[in-house]
Amino acid sequence: MTATFGRVAVLGLGLIGGSLVNAIRQSGLDVIGYDTDPRTAAAASAAGFPVTASDASAVHGADLVVLAMPLPEVGNALRSLAPHLAPGAVLTDVGTLKAPVLELVRATIPTTRFVGGHPLAGTENSGWDAADPLLFRDAPWALTLESDTDLASWIALAELVCDLGAKPVAATAAEQDAAVAHVIGLPHVLAEALALTGLTGGELGLSLAAGSYMTGSRVARTRPDLVATWCDGNPELVTALDDVIARLSDARDHLATKGSVLDLAIAGHRARMDWEHRDFEPVELTADPVGLLAHGRRGGWITAVLRDDDGVRLLGMRPRR
Amino acid sequence: MTATFGRVAVLGLGLIGGSLVNAIRQSGLDVIGYDTDPRTAAAASAAGFPVTASDASAVHGADLVVLAMPLPEVGNALRSLAPHLAPGAVLTDVGTLKAPVLELVRATIPTTRFVGGHPLAGTENSGWDAADPLLFRDAPWALTLESDTDLASWIALAELVCDLGAKPVAATAAEQDAAVAHVIGLPHVLAEALALTGLTGGELGLSLAAGSYMTGSRVARTRPDLVATWCDGNPELVTALDDVIARLSDARDHLATKGSVLDLAIAGHRARMDWEHRDFEPVELTADPVGLLAHGRRGGWITAVLRDDDGVRLLGMRPRR
Repeated sequence: MTATFGRVAVLGLGLIGGSLVNAIRQSGLDVIGYDTDPRTAAAASAAGFPVTASDASAVHGADLVVLAMPLPEVGNALRSLAPHLAPGAVLTDVGTLKAPVLELVRATIPTTRFVGGHPLAGTENSGWDAADPLLFRDAPWALTLESDTDLASWIALAELVCDLGAKPVAATAAEQDAAVAHVIGLPHVLAEALALTGLTGGELGLSLAAGSYMTGSRVARTRPDLVATWCDGNPELVTALDDVIARLSDARDHLATKGSVLDLAIAGHRARMDWEHRDFEPVELTADPVGLLAHGRRGGWITAVLRDDDGVRLLGMRPRR
Repeated sequence: MTATFGRVAVLGLGLIGGSLVNAIRQSGLDVIGYDTDPRTAAAASAAGFPVTASDASAVHGADLVVLAMPLPEVGNALRSLAPHLAPGAVLTDVGTLKAPVLELVRATIPTTRFVGGHPLAGTENSGWDAADPLLFRDAPWALTLESDTDLASWIALAELVCDLGAKPVAATAAEQDAAVAHVIGLPHVLAEALALTGLTGGELGLSLAAGSYMTGSRVARTRPDLVATWCDGNPELVTALDDVIARLSDARDHLATKGSVLDLAIAGHRARMDWEHRDFEPVELTADPVGLLAHGRRGGWITAVLRDDDGVRLLGMRPRR
């Protein structure tokens, strides 16, 4: 259990924020919630969580503040909570894109101890009712590490993330956003395009749609405004889309002229199986930003933070080469 | 229980054929299997199924013969079994594409009572070990109805499909292949492209890949040669790919110039939810090919075949308008 944070305030109690207050309470920490929607706040309160009537009172006295509202609301939230943030408090968030949040924080509260966070957890459902304290179990959780990030805050947050059963991954905001363009933005855009294009097969096609259509378009069930916040303004997603369009065009031409998509199927299958069969090895790391970032860049994550008289060491896992 | 078929021979005991012998035996019919792979044949035999040493002996005396081998093997199988097919026996298959099989049957055994079949069931796993007698429960099952199809054979097969808990859907081979281009071929090609393009995000991206990448690329786990048999040579898949590439290019340009994919996300979400929320009504049908095809074309399927002194009636379901 993390002793570093005495009290955690979670602002925004949707799927991620709601799951977070549940998970943090289960880990034994003092947690307080806030949501702009009175119905959500009432539901959290009815479930036994302390919920404040304003963001100011939630933030007051908290030594970790988690921004868990959708990205379009983060700017206003920062301006509103800035005067109430305790000196030395750590600020984090849980959004998909890290560069826009970093920019907002630097513009609004430049002196705060901010560490951008992105738990890669979630379902196609939204809202407090979908919250689940086990949502973060084994989930990668990007934690941004910039040249001006306070390392002690980063490590304290990594420790909390480990306590929640998740896997902290060090990355700069720019690296994280480039990576999620490929593994979050791209799958969502493809699912939306499939959901839509599947319809053009007519009613007969709708009745014949089965497993592959169903799982392929699953994340198109997500609220479209949320999907947009995970994709919009990410220049790397333009690159990822160029890339996938080129591959699809190749496959299309190959099918039209040579009658087969086998080349793409072989390559896609190999990629998926290689990904599934990655093998990992344990590694010990020092509390050094350069080493932590290199560890993240080669696919590694943190499994534990050890504190003793000599200082802090971190244990991790990384893909075997 | 269908009394129409006394003995069913299933040639090919992979995922579909293996599930079929299990399901048919559970429905109370006499079933016999055959597979070119001695290990598969031995496994089926060890599980208590009568398995023959040749396709000739499996086919001998069967009044329904099911071709359940991959498409590239169907031509040879037809030539091999043709001399042994009982007069009046019904022949069907379980492949994804119906036009190529129809063409092979017409070229090899033009006088046979052939009804092309395509159960829309399956997982990303293959082989006898993945067989499951419940695989067809609630699955759509296309049954081709051409101008020269023997209607009594079609109805007998529809009855058997209903007995297996699946949903017979009438369509011409051409209509079926056009529809599956959108709901099977397209999702598989997109999954392969995603599996591959996801890799280009580097090791960090591989570690951050979570739910949307995992389900989006799920069917890329399928054996690539099988994926190819479901896609290859289907001209409608070229059209479906043109369509999805155009939508992705629009989304890409919109993201690059206006910074948002919201339009596509809204349209994709609506398409997926409309599909999920389709509402159905019961309908009674006569044994008339034109009416059965019209029923399939508007998304309807058969739920029961009723036989009485006045002849045959069919019950069905169709989307409410």
